Amino acid sequence: MKISDIIKNHQLQSLFIEGNFGIEKEGLRTDMEEKLAMTDHPYTLGSRLYHPYMMTDFSEAQPELITPVRPSLELSMNWLEALHDVLHRSLPDDEYLWPNSMPNILPEEEEIPIIRYNDPDAIRYREYLAESYGKKKQTISGIHFNFSFSDAFIEAVFEHQSQFNTLVEFKNDLYIKLAGNFLKYEWVLLYLFGASPYADPSFYDSKSGRLLKKPTDYVRSLRNSSFGYHNHEEVIVNYDSVECYVKDIENFVETGHLSEEREFYGNARLRGRGERLRDMLDTGVDYIEFRSFDLNPLDRLGISYDQGRFYHLFFLYMVWLDSEATVEEITEGQEKNLNTADENPFESSAFKEEGLQILEDMSSMLNELSLIDKYGDLIDKAKEKFEYPDRTLSARVAAQIDEQGYLAHGRELGLKYKHYSTDRPYVLNGFEDMELSTQLLMYDALELGVEMEIIDRADQFLKLSHEDRVEYVRNGNMTSKDTTISHFIMENKTVTKKILAEAGYSVPGGGEYHSLEEAMANYLKYKDQAIVIKPKSTNYGIGISVFKNFPSKESYQEALKIAFKEDDTVLVEEFIEGTEYRFFVLNGEVGAVLLRVPANVEGDGTSTISELIDEKNEDPLRGENHRAPMAYIEKGSIEKLMLKEQGLDFDSIPEEGQTVYLRENSNISTGGDSIDFTDEMHESYNAIAVGIAEALEVNVTGIDLIIPDYQKPSTAEEPGYSCIEANFNPAMNMHAYVTKGKGRRLTKGILEMLFPELVQQQKERVKETIK
Amino acid sequence: MKISDIIKNHQLQSLFIEGNFGIEKEGLRTDMEEKLAMTDHPYTLGSRLYHPYMMTDFSEAQPELITPVRPSLELSMNWLEALHDVLHRSLPDDEYLWPNSMPNILPEEEEIPIIRYNDPDAIRYREYLAESYGKKKQTISGIHFNFSFSDAFIEAVFEHQSQFNTLVEFKNDLYIKLAGNFLKYEWVLLYLFGASPYADPSFYDSKSGRLLKKPTDYVRSLRNSSFGYHNHEEVIVNYDSVECYVKDIENFVETGHLSEEREFYGNARLRGRGERLRDMLDTGVDYIEFRSFDLNPLDRLGISYDQGRFYHLFFLYMVWLDSEATVEEITEGQEKNLNTADENPFESSAFKEEGLQILEDMSSMLNELSLIDKYGDLIDKAKEKFEYPDRTLSARVAAQIDEQGYLAHGRELGLKYKHYSTDRPYVLNGFEDMELSTQLLMYDALELGVEMEIIDRADQFLKLSHEDRVEYVRNGNMTSKDTTISHFIMENKTVTKKILAEAGYSVPGGGEYHSLEEAMANYLKYKDQAIVIKPKSTNYGIGISVFKNFPSKESYQEALKIAFKEDDTVLVEEFIEGTEYRFFVLNGEVGAVLLRVPANVEGDGTSTISELIDEKNEDPLRGENHRAPMAYIEKGSIEKLMLKEQGLDFDSIPEEGQTVYLRENSNISTGGDSIDFTDEMHESYNAIAVGIAEALEVNVTGIDLIIPDYQKPSTAEEPGYSCIEANFNPAMNMHAYVTKGKGRRLTKGILEMLFPELVQQQKERVKETIK
Repeated sequence: MKISDIIKNHQLQSLFIEGNFGIEKEGLRTDMEEKLAMTDHPYTLGSRLYHPYMMTDFSEAQPELITPVRPSLELSMNWLEALHDVLHRSLPDDEYLWPNSMPNILPEEEEIPIIRYNDPDAIRYREYLAESYGKKKQTISGIHFNFSFSDAFIEAVFEHQSQFNTLVEFKNDLYIKLAGNFLKYEWVLLYLFGASPYADPSFYDSKSGRLLKKPTDYVRSLRNSSFGYHNHEEVIVNYDSVECYVKDIENFVETGHLSEEREFYGNARLRGRGERLRDMLDTGVDYIEFRSFDLNPLDRLGISYDQGRFYHLFFLYMVWLDSEATVEEITEGQEKNLNTADENPFESSAFKEEGLQILEDMSSMLNELSLIDKYGDLIDKAKEKFEYPDRTLSARVAAQIDEQGYLAHGRELGLKYKHYSTDRPYVLNGFEDMELSTQLLMYDALELGVEMEIIDRADQFLKLSHEDRVEYVRNGNMTSKDTTISHFIMENKTVTKKILAEAGYSVPGGGEYHSLEEAMANYLKYKDQAIVIKPKSTNYGIGISVFKNFPSKESYQEALKIAFKEDDTVLVEEFIEGTEYRFFVLNGEVGAVLLRVPANVEGDGTSTISELIDEKNEDPLRGENHRAPMAYIEKGSIEKLMLKEQGLDFDSIPEEGQTVYLRENSNISTGGDSIDFTDEMHESYNAIAVGIAEALEVNVTGIDLIIPDYQKPSTAEEPGYSCIEANFNPAMNMHAYVTKGKGRRLTKGILEMLFPELVQQQKERVKETIK
Repeated sequence: MKISDIIKNHQLQSLFIEGNFGIEKEGLRTDMEEKLAMTDHPYTLGSRLYHPYMMTDFSEAQPELITPVRPSLELSMNWLEALHDVLHRSLPDDEYLWPNSMPNILPEEEEIPIIRYNDPDAIRYREYLAESYGKKKQTISGIHFNFSFSDAFIEAVFEHQSQFNTLVEFKNDLYIKLAGNFLKYEWVLLYLFGASPYADPSFYDSKSGRLLKKPTDYVRSLRNSSFGYHNHEEVIVNYDSVECYVKDIENFVETGHLSEEREFYGNARLRGRGERLRDMLDTGVDYIEFRSFDLNPLDRLGISYDQGRFYHLFFLYMVWLDSEATVEEITEGQEKNLNTADENPFESSAFKEEGLQILEDMSSMLNELSLIDKYGDLIDKAKEKFEYPDRTLSARVAAQIDEQGYLAHGRELGLKYKHYSTDRPYVLNGFEDMELSTQLLMYDALELGVEMEIIDRADQFLKLSHEDRVEYVRNGNMTSKDTTISHFIMENKTVTKKILAEAGYSVPGGGEYHSLEEAMANYLKYKDQAIVIKPKSTNYGIGISVFKNFPSKESYQEALKIAFKEDDTVLVEEFIEGTEYRFFVLNGEVGAVLLRVPANVEGDGTSTISELIDEKNEDPLRGENHRAPMAYIEKGSIEKLMLKEQGLDFDSIPEEGQTVYLRENSNISTGGDSIDFTDEMHESYNAIAVGIAEALEVNVTGIDLIIPDYQKPSTAEEPGYSCIEANFNPAMNMHAYVTKGKGRRLTKGILEMLFPELVQQQKERVKETIK
């Protein structure tokens, strides 16, 4: 069987490049003096006893981010970005993540803290590792890259081959080939992407004596060199077959060279689904864990997307090759790898020609697969690095370290990466294309350690789970905790009003009309009133006319015509004077009250309106429409007209303290300000908003109340409000980051509704810490 | 205060003609020999202990339909129609409703059954009435018409008058004026709409001797004559003020002339909200009950819409008048009324000139209100009747009775009205504009005695309640029993498939693409498969291409382009061969399984296809699209083409037993047949459909399964199905009335989910009866 022929003959290219990807990334927490942090893992994060994506590796100061396995590299990278956001924002102000594989300033061996949490087995294992390898080596961090082919690919190739009788046999042979060839050739990757040329002296300065000798100059990869953390020399495993692999590891455990199977730290570990390695013989290899990748300190995730793509391509080539690596070839390959690790990063590879030949062969593969357009640039760049060693990652890192000093360099990058996450706290990087409210909810779920799957990204559809419980969430606020009918009640303004009126709540009077004639016939009914004419079902202010004085019959008709363009049914409603507040009701409580104010600037006596707008737009909370909690104030025709009506233009200079409005409407999306009123609002209105949600039998809703005086209590005799709408898809992000007042994290309330015990535990952990 | 001036000066016309309307209609059940039915009230109807719309009046054989109070006459009439449907369809085959106010053949007094149900107080009161007035008089039936002005009207007029200090005083004066003037002038209505010219001899033939003397000829209204049922002569109530009215009735109760306040049966009864009449003095009159209207036997509802409109107009005129009736005028008016009742229907009214003058004055009122166009014709017709007495209702009824005989005439009309309801059992008359599934649900709710309000007619939005429980229902199937998120899960095909696949259910393989390029790049992935290409979110077959053989790259691209026209996201899905069945899952059980077959006819060896289509379309279950459970088979271009492909045309004569298909698609809406498979389907598939609903966490859904062999059990190893869709708004009507097999009343299941105890009680009552 030649896999390459099967792929070519049966046009399996698109299946071949499918795959499942998972990334694990360790890193050290560091204090502002670049010393290993002695603090506890952040308490706001969900417990490591169940957190699926955030653990600590060996040390308490060594958080580990674990992306779920996803069917594309891009998705895994999205996850890695998002997890970085969560980790960065969870760190105290005086800590950041060390960007290098080699540690920051380490204390004495005995002071390096191993994990602190209530899992005796995990602690015992780390104590054994400390004893067996030394603590300092355990602080070296890196990337583990998990890869498998798609089931569809494996099944398709299996179908067209005749060598193996069972899918498991075939699959195991495929993966052992991948692992063996990888070990034979991985030095190529190390040459290209090795990135640990240097270590802080504290790494070597050990009383235990294990690491006393340091290299005399920069190398390509300390982590992959003899200074790195590997199994003891005698642990050599045979990759001829999965059976050999399993038996060898079992033997090492039996003879005490390994404490248990998981202690085998080969650069290509075969992983199955069962508890024991041996289960792979029945159920097959599930994926391979590639463990030799240094953290790339020049990328904020420790690995760049193109790096990942190259790894993937390299894996493909490892199975595309006709041959499988022999034991000798693997041994030789591993020696080349050690050799490469020790090389001076600025000098050519000892195996340059071989490296170039491999790249050339990869290029041929891409040509045969018609994939050269898609991946060709990766090969070109790799070739370049073989020609110019100073362009390798290790050389670039070494040059920077040489210039800045190791600690200053690590500090600059680490802080930069942390700020990338903390500067725009409303965004979940990796998923910035999703709705802001959903991004906030995802953030909170990741923080809490709820398992998450994005089942439809464009539709903001999430699956959240913890243990046996599964909850689906759409748009961040639609859940199993609300009923279908409550959704449709709120969708229908007339139905909402009828139900609220019947329940005794104050709503604007008015009528619903299905034709112009019918509405015209009721013209006189609204006599002497201020009225709003609006289409029944649109939501964004389209087709709405407001008459603060009763309109002429002609204007009334005109407004009706405009509204009927948008909908078959039109509402004529009493217009209520007062200020509109949004009450976000969540699970029977008011989670937030918000006042929205039309776009405006405040004069300083010297700046023009145009300048004041620019200044206001510099707020990082403002951005393109719907991509930030607040929108830029525009300098468009509407704003111009609004100024003109006030006798102003963009060059006018308002007096100090003078507020100039640039819009009539108060939408946040047209530059409006958001002002939190949660603590200011008189409690009687909160009770009303909660009551309205109850009457509509809904747990999550945005209630819009018109309130002339928010400080004056509303009473049964004199209701101080009118309810104009209940929103079935209320935005949460606008409450989280506001122009004035305190932000309200409603998404956490949603999670509390779905997983109350997890949020409760989190609150208790944080309370405990504050004490 | 002149109300007419206030209305004119302040343009209150449109408020003036607003009002609230409620209709109560009694009638006797009769057997096929036109004798009073001796059977029990239908057991399928909800218990009279709580039924809000269907009671029995005096006799067990005297059902009473009570519409809720509604803000337009039209709506009340809709309700009256619907209630007739329910009552008619609930009657045994050998019973119908007697259309006349005067009874059918009555047995001896003692054999007339008074109500039979467990309400001792209600029975005691009827026993008293039997004793006091005689049972036969109690069987006379009629219409009670409840009317009130809109609150808005009363408040507006109150605001512009100065005579009364409180709204209650003003309102009570308004209603006492209406009642008094009505009693003064009601003879006009009796002249126009009296409709009980004759009674069966059994009515008079009483051993008790009370009714021994019969009139010598037809009269206008026996019911309103001395033969009718009125309070004893001495009970005369003063209508000078509400206070007088209340005091008088209280006195009659005290002196024993009335057993209790409700025994006062004046033709205009003031009704308040409190338990005692006296409460009206504090809270005001709520509405007036007008009681003098005969059943109109020539209208299937006992009252025509125009009749109701005329009553309404008459009420308006009664308050438009400047004067309020004095005690003397009322007495005189009541004498005129008795006089009119006794008149020969074919002769002129003794008060013809006065009547014409009143009509003329009503006409003037209409002119002043600019309402002559809307109501003028009613006045014209009334005037005509004063000119030509044989055009009055009483004369027309008398003429028909004279020709056919009283019993034959009543039988013909009664059966005709019953058949109107029973011929198209899938329609709820009065609400035919609503969706069929909602009509079915409304029918079942009315039958059961659940309180109902249509809160948005065009949106199929109902409020159902019983005692303290309120349930909202939209489209007949969206309720509080399902969650918001389950709705959106089903709305999203990709999400549905992902969840089902994860839960282990068989779904078609495939992919989701957001651009033509992306989909094209995956062309080879579907190699060798039959595929369907479809837009992600449309539901009605638009933009869908099916390739039973793997398409060329060009056809694949063409189909993608078509699909991308409909949606941003396109699905390429494995096409599964087999037959599609719809499983309606309701509350954890399969309520119905349906096979839909494309429009077809079966040959008889002599008829042309065109004739066979006509014949099939005669089925009363077929009708215009969505207005009947099945649609007409059309003879359009698609059908023509389909025939042509088979070498046929509309004039071809198929052989006997030969099935000719006229459509490719199996939609019911294009003339397809519906075949019930509920009992035929192998139970393993039912378990799958129920499991799918569970996985989607939904209580009401339509699951579409492709099943190659419905008799072959589906097993975990060999699943015999593929799930292609779960519908969030599954039609229920198509299961209720089918082309072949047994209809399934799913709407009753919906009610059982919402009000389980009521349906349980109904089932028990029916079971009890069948025993």
